[in-house]
Amino acid sequence: MPKISAATVAQHRDEQIRAILDASIELMREDGALPGMGRIASRAGLARSSIYQYFPSRRELLIAITEDMTPRWLARVTGSMDRHTAPAERILAYLEANVELVASGDHAAGDALAAEPGIQEFVQNHAQALHERLLEPLVHELERLGVDDAEHYAVFLNAQLHTATGLLAQGLPAARVWELLRSITEPFLRSHEERD
Amino acid sequence: MPKISAATVAQHRDEQIRAILDASIELMREDGALPGMGRIASRAGLARSSIYQYFPSRRELLIAITEDMTPRWLARVTGSMDRHTAPAERILAYLEANVELVASGDHAAGDALAAEPGIQEFVQNHAQALHERLLEPLVHELERLGVDDAEHYAVFLNAQLHTATGLLAQGLPAARVWELLRSITEPFLRSHEERD
Repeated sequence: MPKISAATVAQHRDEQIRAILDASIELMREDGALPGMGRIASRAGLARSSIYQYFPSRRELLIAITEDMTPRWLARVTGSMDRHTAPAERILAYLEANVELVASGDHAAGDALAAEPGIQEFVQNHAQALHERLLEPLVHELERLGVDDAEHYAVFLNAQLHTATGLLAQGLPAARVWELLRSITEPFLRSHEERD
Repeated sequence: MPKISAATVAQHRDEQIRAILDASIELMREDGALPGMGRIASRAGLARSSIYQYFPSRRELLIAITEDMTPRWLARVTGSMDRHTAPAERILAYLEANVELVASGDHAAGDALAAEPGIQEFVQNHAQALHERLLEPLVHELERLGVDDAEHYAVFLNAQLHTATGLLAQGLPAARVWELLRSITEPFLRSHEERD
């Protein structure tokens, strides 16, 4: 009989959780939305009932996926920005990376979560903090661009981004959404560049 | 004993309703929000209980105020636009008039209504139709400006306007809000003008 140490049990649990998260992210990217628990369990190679040992409800799974993806989302956005030096280009890269991430299905867990009832606590503890953290590089680049009220302009640019993701949800192709978002934001950014 | 004809009764009722609506609009403009039924009745020169003869609930009063103000709102916006001929100027006038109307408290009934539970039916029948009707002049001027997807750009400009009204609600002065909105939208509009 093989000896089952606490470390082995903990490791097994971590592996199962990782498999569930990876299966969820994979399916989200394929479908553009998070499917039911049964399909996620099946993709992770688990019985439907087993998934509930790790995530007692869909809501808990949604929170875990969102938290798991957050650092990668931030890394993708800042990585795109870092391919440029001029603030206007960095802001455009920020906007484009966010459109691409939403279009790739990487925001589907967040959207599903936002539609769940009773998420106020999660929003206050996590989602709002994440969205504020995501605004920071935008505020920073607007300051570098020399605008005098960077925080308010960041709110306006973020609203444009939000409008763009609404058009993605309506089924408009990502390339067209990015074209619209670029042409509505770029003249503002260039107008500040010219003043330098 | 004076003869009370049906016409007199109907006329009296219309006058009371008009007095309640006028009192509501006046108080909304003074306070930036619609006060309680008692204060409205008092301003209209009615007993608190009498207001309920005409509007059985706050919700019904909010709907009546919103419907009463709609044609004046539209007239103010199109009136501002009509002081200009160039499409970019007309679009800026549209945005500025909307900011001024919200800042003056004229949207307070709509805001209060939006916060009421169970307004889906009203939104579907009226508020959505009104907001869509309000987008029409914007779409028309964007087409005159020569943009190739005027309806989507109108959605973006409308989201900027919505962001601006959010800043008003946060207490930012109307003049500053309009300055922010103008500087974020005007470069886009001018960039299309230059192509003519």
